[in-house]
Amino acid sequence: MIEHIRRSFPGNFARSRGITLGIGDDCAILRPPRGHEVLITTDFSLENRHFRRDLHPPQSVGHRCLARGLSDLAAMGATPLAAFLSLALPARLLRLKRGQAWLVGFLEGMRTLAAQSRTTLAGGDTSESPADLILADIVLVGTAPRGRALRRSTARPGDQIYITGSLGGAHAELTALLSANRPSKAKPHDVHPHFYPQPRLGVGRDLLRRRLATSAIDLSDGLSTDLAHLCESSGVRAEVNAASLPLHPLTQKLSQNDALHAALNGGEDYELLFTAAPTTHVPKKIAGVPITRIGSIHRPAANRPRVTLVDDEGRRNELRSAGWEHLAGR
Amino acid sequence: MIEHIRRSFPGNFARSRGITLGIGDDCAILRPPRGHEVLITTDFSLENRHFRRDLHPPQSVGHRCLARGLSDLAAMGATPLAAFLSLALPARLLRLKRGQAWLVGFLEGMRTLAAQSRTTLAGGDTSESPADLILADIVLVGTAPRGRALRRSTARPGDQIYITGSLGGAHAELTALLSANRPSKAKPHDVHPHFYPQPRLGVGRDLLRRRLATSAIDLSDGLSTDLAHLCESSGVRAEVNAASLPLHPLTQKLSQNDALHAALNGGEDYELLFTAAPTTHVPKKIAGVPITRIGSIHRPAANRPRVTLVDDEGRRNELRSAGWEHLAGR
Repeated sequence: MIEHIRRSFPGNFARSRGITLGIGDDCAILRPPRGHEVLITTDFSLENRHFRRDLHPPQSVGHRCLARGLSDLAAMGATPLAAFLSLALPARLLRLKRGQAWLVGFLEGMRTLAAQSRTTLAGGDTSESPADLILADIVLVGTAPRGRALRRSTARPGDQIYITGSLGGAHAELTALLSANRPSKAKPHDVHPHFYPQPRLGVGRDLLRRRLATSAIDLSDGLSTDLAHLCESSGVRAEVNAASLPLHPLTQKLSQNDALHAALNGGEDYELLFTAAPTTHVPKKIAGVPITRIGSIHRPAANRPRVTLVDDEGRRNELRSAGWEHLAGR
Repeated sequence: MIEHIRRSFPGNFARSRGITLGIGDDCAILRPPRGHEVLITTDFSLENRHFRRDLHPPQSVGHRCLARGLSDLAAMGATPLAAFLSLALPARLLRLKRGQAWLVGFLEGMRTLAAQSRTTLAGGDTSESPADLILADIVLVGTAPRGRALRRSTARPGDQIYITGSLGGAHAELTALLSANRPSKAKPHDVHPHFYPQPRLGVGRDLLRRRLATSAIDLSDGLSTDLAHLCESSGVRAEVNAASLPLHPLTQKLSQNDALHAALNGGEDYELLFTAAPTTHVPKKIAGVPITRIGSIHRPAANRPRVTLVDDEGRRNELRSAGWEHLAGR
């Protein structure tokens, strides 16, 4: 299995990108550029929690596994350096032709996104799974100029709130998948916000380089949850205008209420939410991705909720965190 | 759960040890010392593969989870900087008092070894387990002076082979545990090579600093397997003298044959194996740990096996890799 993984990732970016030693020793050795810090994040991808073997194409599972970590790097404006994959497969799976095809597809999905994002697979661990379940954990390592990484704790009263792309698409596509309840044939070259989310690395990097953002977070758990995280970390509150939320075209199949729910709580859109000072000119597009202003940051107040949703008629309601809890209880 | 973990690791080493940002943002930010490289390794600890919930004390599971990664750093002479823990627990476990006690014990075992080794828990991921199984994956990040990390690929013909401590203890203790088949009460302050292995960080660091070793690897899978890995990576072969192997006192309860088997194939001793040039004076103790010469490195030869075991009477036999495959098939 290790040999297979190693052959799937020929390490073509290794020499130029600060990987001194990749797969094959007790540790990998990374050499971050001078004056840079190292950013690290880890994310589980567990069968029946984060994906369904019977519904998700293996390419999508591999893509999403890597995308989760890349999106965390994007949120801090980091440049990917290396990934580490811990992968446990059921022994039964590896004995079956179909199982081997699963692994090939999984690695293909991961490799394609790794190549697009110039990320080297530099190591990891393999094991037999203790259950008939595929278990993966991905580690992403990135770099950012010293002291410059974007954080979720630095939003300030008066800042405006922006998001990249559109919301609710991943939730709409997942809902359709679960209700159809048959394997998807989604291909990476079409638009598939659930199966093939695009981590916003270019936007994060531009926000950092052009000093546009005061804070940032990625929308992995859903706007209502992630914006609350940002407010808590920053010690501020936020107001969001429902009418300004850019809804993904896939939400058009849903009722207006369900579309709004998908956008607010759906999760896994892997867009970025960031704040900018009121005096900052934020372009309509960054790194080719549309940017939309959706609200504003305020001083916390005893009688005001952490996050307020302002509806089309100007009514204000608390927006409670109701983020995506993966496949639990569905 | 995240709050519990965060409180269990107050991050007391953070400021002085290059952690700019720990648990709580999308990524942690690490600042390796100037002129140093970053070493990274990941290791699964999966219930029923690497430990048994019904037999292993939770403190031991937490200790061993971290020790596996620390030992990989030790093998390369690195200094630990930070750890990242991905932990998935069964929902049922968290609802039970006994389950909460398990988590407390697990974190206590990990925290104690983290404090001893000056390792900060800087992040990770949590999830509900998709099965009634505890799933952990640990990432260790260390640093070493640029270009100086020890490797397994740099042994040279003529080198002598050394190991730290003694062999077979972990296997002997595990065998006793499995045959007793009841929960162990092993405490970390006694000598428990299986429950509380001591990663040889001090030895690794001294080998690097004093330029004593030409190559190194840790004995996680067993001498027969790990020495074969080192020989393959270095393009050399090895001869090991059976009579010179330092057997752990716990192997005295075994037959002579079983003791030798435990030492050669038992695995999980987490000692270091290293090679040194024939002209290098290797002290009898390094960082307080006894060092024993067990064999020598040779040019590969078509009619000679990768690893040869020389018995007490001078007979030479191939030493086949028969390393520890965790709890599989036991």
